[in-house]
Amino acid sequence: MDAATCRRLFASSLRAALATSGLRGPHIVPIVFAVDENRLYTAIDQKPKTTNRLQRLKNIERDPAVAVLADRYADDWASLWWVRADGVASTVTDSETRAHGLDLLAAKYPAYRDQRPHGALIAIDVTSWKGWSAAGAAS
Amino acid sequence: MDAATCRRLFASSLRAALATSGLRGPHIVPIVFAVDENRLYTAIDQKPKTTNRLQRLKNIERDPAVAVLADRYADDWASLWWVRADGVASTVTDSETRAHGLDLLAAKYPAYRDQRPHGALIAIDVTSWKGWSAAGAAS
Repeated sequence: MDAATCRRLFASSLRAALATSGLRGPHIVPIVFAVDENRLYTAIDQKPKTTNRLQRLKNIERDPAVAVLADRYADDWASLWWVRADGVASTVTDSETRAHGLDLLAAKYPAYRDQRPHGALIAIDVTSWKGWSAAGAAS
Repeated sequence: MDAATCRRLFASSLRAALATSGLRGPHIVPIVFAVDENRLYTAIDQKPKTTNRLQRLKNIERDPAVAVLADRYADDWASLWWVRADGVASTVTDSETRAHGLDLLAAKYPAYRDQRPHGALIAIDVTSWKGWSAAGAAS
């Protein structure tokens, strides 16, 4: 599956899983995200978070290498696909970039139009798109 | 969310994301799995796999600490939940344990009843169940 197809499928997904490296092993959380060319944006919203959910920020600060997975599951395994984006994460500090990222998130998610995220905005610069689809594998 | 609730929700999910530690960062793949008390089983089936998909086995051999995420996404964010199982992964070599794990997988997935996985069976001994639900957070 080429990078353009991977990115298109990935962007079509409403949620993904973000893996970061912790001191005692990998850490993984579900995220919502927006795709902007080879960059992903995901935000920490204003809801109360447990220490565990914020672990992602600590991990990224120490080791910015991350992997993000979007996939489709179905009872019919002939329609499965997944796409993995490997990249480098950072917390957005520039206010224009933040506004742009939040605009993209609000355009994708109605819940973010009602209430914009107030927490950190994470940018992930994707260095590799990899994917697999059952349809592609069978052809 | 207590461990029993986490495990019940996790077991109700048909797919999860498995994060392992690679040399250049975290690695993440979608998996199907069966839950047996505090153990998860997931198999490599007989379909052709790319080098990337088998990366999980190499990673586990070098660093058995893994994290597995099951979650529910919905447009209505009030019904979201996720559960993360942190644990220690190993490849099952004992034939009785392998048969037991495959039985559990076949009981959960019709596709595995039609054709049992022929590849490696991974066992993940869960050391921690953590979870969050929007319903629980709001109450």
